[in-house]
Amino acid sequence: MLSDDILKGKVKKKEFKERAHDLRIRLSELSRALRENGIPAIIVFEGWDAAGKGKMINELILGMDARSCSVYSSEQRSEEERMRPLLWSFQVKTPAAGNVAVFDKSWNKELVESCVGGVDRSREELLKRCNALLSFERSLIDNGTLLLKYFLHISKGEQEKRFEKLMSDERTRWRVSKKDERRHKQYDKYKKAFSDMLEQAEAKGADWKVIGAEDLEYAALAVIEDVINEFEAAVEKKKAGNEKVSGLNIKTEKIVPLKNYPKLSEIDPQVDIEKGEYKDKLKKYQKELRGLEHELYLRRVPLIVMYEGWDAAGKGGSIRRLAQSMDPRGYEVIPVSAPDSTERAHHYLWRFWKKIPKAGHIAIFDRTWYGRVLVERVEGFAKEEQWRRAYDEINETEKEFTNFGGVIVKFWLQIDKDEQLRRFKEREETPHKRWKLTEEDWRNREKRGVYEEALAEMFERTHTQHAPWTVVEGNNKHFARIKALKTVIDSLKKVL
Amino acid sequence: MLSDDILKGKVKKKEFKERAHDLRIRLSELSRALRENGIPAIIVFEGWDAAGKGKMINELILGMDARSCSVYSSEQRSEEERMRPLLWSFQVKTPAAGNVAVFDKSWNKELVESCVGGVDRSREELLKRCNALLSFERSLIDNGTLLLKYFLHISKGEQEKRFEKLMSDERTRWRVSKKDERRHKQYDKYKKAFSDMLEQAEAKGADWKVIGAEDLEYAALAVIEDVINEFEAAVEKKKAGNEKVSGLNIKTEKIVPLKNYPKLSEIDPQVDIEKGEYKDKLKKYQKELRGLEHELYLRRVPLIVMYEGWDAAGKGGSIRRLAQSMDPRGYEVIPVSAPDSTERAHHYLWRFWKKIPKAGHIAIFDRTWYGRVLVERVEGFAKEEQWRRAYDEINETEKEFTNFGGVIVKFWLQIDKDEQLRRFKEREETPHKRWKLTEEDWRNREKRGVYEEALAEMFERTHTQHAPWTVVEGNNKHFARIKALKTVIDSLKKVL
Repeated sequence: MLSDDILKGKVKKKEFKERAHDLRIRLSELSRALRENGIPAIIVFEGWDAAGKGKMINELILGMDARSCSVYSSEQRSEEERMRPLLWSFQVKTPAAGNVAVFDKSWNKELVESCVGGVDRSREELLKRCNALLSFERSLIDNGTLLLKYFLHISKGEQEKRFEKLMSDERTRWRVSKKDERRHKQYDKYKKAFSDMLEQAEAKGADWKVIGAEDLEYAALAVIEDVINEFEAAVEKKKAGNEKVSGLNIKTEKIVPLKNYPKLSEIDPQVDIEKGEYKDKLKKYQKELRGLEHELYLRRVPLIVMYEGWDAAGKGGSIRRLAQSMDPRGYEVIPVSAPDSTERAHHYLWRFWKKIPKAGHIAIFDRTWYGRVLVERVEGFAKEEQWRRAYDEINETEKEFTNFGGVIVKFWLQIDKDEQLRRFKEREETPHKRWKLTEEDWRNREKRGVYEEALAEMFERTHTQHAPWTVVEGNNKHFARIKALKTVIDSLKKVL
Repeated sequence: MLSDDILKGKVKKKEFKERAHDLRIRLSELSRALRENGIPAIIVFEGWDAAGKGKMINELILGMDARSCSVYSSEQRSEEERMRPLLWSFQVKTPAAGNVAVFDKSWNKELVESCVGGVDRSREELLKRCNALLSFERSLIDNGTLLLKYFLHISKGEQEKRFEKLMSDERTRWRVSKKDERRHKQYDKYKKAFSDMLEQAEAKGADWKVIGAEDLEYAALAVIEDVINEFEAAVEKKKAGNEKVSGLNIKTEKIVPLKNYPKLSEIDPQVDIEKGEYKDKLKKYQKELRGLEHELYLRRVPLIVMYEGWDAAGKGGSIRRLAQSMDPRGYEVIPVSAPDSTERAHHYLWRFWKKIPKAGHIAIFDRTWYGRVLVERVEGFAKEEQWRRAYDEINETEKEFTNFGGVIVKFWLQIDKDEQLRRFKEREETPHKRWKLTEEDWRNREKRGVYEEALAEMFERTHTQHAPWTVVEGNNKHFARIKALKTVIDSLKKVL
């Protein structure tokens, strides 16, 4: 993959200036076309130390509209990033429609470091990890992102020359770190690791473009030209009505859900509990949860609790009982409603990615990303191919979180139609509850059958080993609250 | 201020339950009214360790709509926060219209710690700092935020009892830190510091409400009741057409600008430079800047470069020459256009606060917060009292940044009317530049006189010691680029 032939490309200074000028004009036009057509683009640079990633990125972005272009360096992960799964750093930076995000090193860095840097992983683990990263790319592409990946290649000799030049000048010496020197010595080992990575990706349809960067100006022209071609092709595809504008066709292994998924038809939502027992257990479990919250904080375990359920199923009351005894510095309740215009311009999971709790913290979602396969499916806000692929995308996102050590608890609060009607009427009759009941609630109620269909498929496709569903029998609010509390406690105890 | 009388309040468990229930219903109604009337609210809790801030916040937020309420703890500053001025942590968290932000400890913490914790500052320095913090509060209030500040008071004996109780149980022992114990021993010293802080604030019209918290449930009721009253009053004021809904009237000392501010009428925008000289200097200065960029990174100095200027004055080209030689990981170009709906719902400086560079990094603003006193003034987007107070607010924000060690360079790119016309026509005639020229540019050109008036006042009011303006003679683009580069270099050299 990293052949030396590729290193021979050269360009004369004068030729560079002329061509660069014209190419920049074209690039600037195309970055506006990207914007007008609402295409988000991600451009990733990997490559050898001193291969010129910085210069390449500068040459590229100076031709683009600064308004729609962001550069991110992944050299050092921030505290916020280290406290979350690796992919999170990139998920939250995925661009809005029309914008371009340029990454100096990417999610693939982890793989390379694993191969060389001494992170002890088996080949099997590495392939799994590779699959997870490619799944992220697949999901970006499926949802309309143009993804371009460049690998800048230089020879060991050229790298040595560049380091020496930097070291010889006091003003640039700082740019060569001990780590760089160490890595330079291991050039051959790294070359094998890079080649592996590139081959692995190609085998899955997620090709990198390898650019010979011995002559930096030649490389800059090659990159800019390729970006222009890709932008042009993407705009054409979009204009022709395609959601997917990338030429890549990435194949990944899907997560297989569990067979014993919940079936609502088999569940009686009426389970009662005595008032005295309720009070005792509430107090006991709240206290226990407070203790576990601290354990979780100490051991840096993040927790996501997701609430889904019929309108008036009692999500709010249950969340309140869960939160009441907790330290407000440790948890956040995230109410989810319709996405705003900024959110709609991003990958549909982006607004949820942003809310992934950091290690040791808790996020309680009042409605969740499952909206994609429930309300968005039923109301037609998502096209069939969109919500169909969402099952895998959600499974993968949840897996990234639990792989990092996170715990996920997913609740469906189940009440029957009669109980729902009773609660709607109660809301109508109680002045301070009236605002909770909307026309939409009544409309949703009419669609119960269609929702049940969507729910059945949701349980079947997303009840996984790492993030199983819990159906909470909700006709009796007291019972439901206790069961939810107890479920969270039990899930935490398994890992703490 | 911290009298012991206040500690006597008590409430019976049964009475608490009944009243809390009713109050929560009312609070929930009012948090919706706040939302409907677009009032942003900030609720701040300070007080003794173990005074029950956590419980108080939980009791409060459980009555509010989770959709519009966020809780922030300022106990530990994150890495992102430590790399920016203290106020930044709060500036970026100021809520949008209709939302409530609850802060567990606030910007005032710094003052208290200074008094006791050993930060070595003179009384004079403390008062200055106090003035800066109150200026922030004043600006929030003037721009429509409802600011409520509660101080939870308990006696030394009560604090001891609470620590002992926590320590006696294995499951809660972790909640008492070494720091807590140390501070407990210094209760009297802290009491004096707290009293000072509260008196200081009161003297300036920025009163705290001191709540006796020996009985936590009594305190919770007191806080919720007061919040309800304040919310009610704010909604009334807003409905009556007031922008300012707070009852506070904070007085602060304003920053005095320099006398020798630039006068455009005295500046000839035509200064020439030979092509050869331009090329040499460009190369030389870009190289020098690259070195300084590293120095700045090593010494953790943040830099803001602001570009303002007439349409077609050459901002883009100058920014490009500045950025070209820099490491894209170290700088960000921030193009500023009209605020979007989210931004409009916040304090007008919020979208700029979010872009304050972290220590060691560079932000280049293509148009700036001076838009408030230029385009917003001229076009009537800001009311006169709004843009009039903006001078002080901007001076204060800049001061917070330079006090932290940041460097600010402010450019006005000056071209005359003829040169502007020449450039407009050139843009019209060059296909790839045509998009740059809009109808608005022509309209702005007609208003040159009004803009000149606004500019004169801007220079007079915001040319400060800590952030002076540089007018760049811009008829000759080459000269302008060199002068901008040199100015940035000189400004950096002064501090590096």
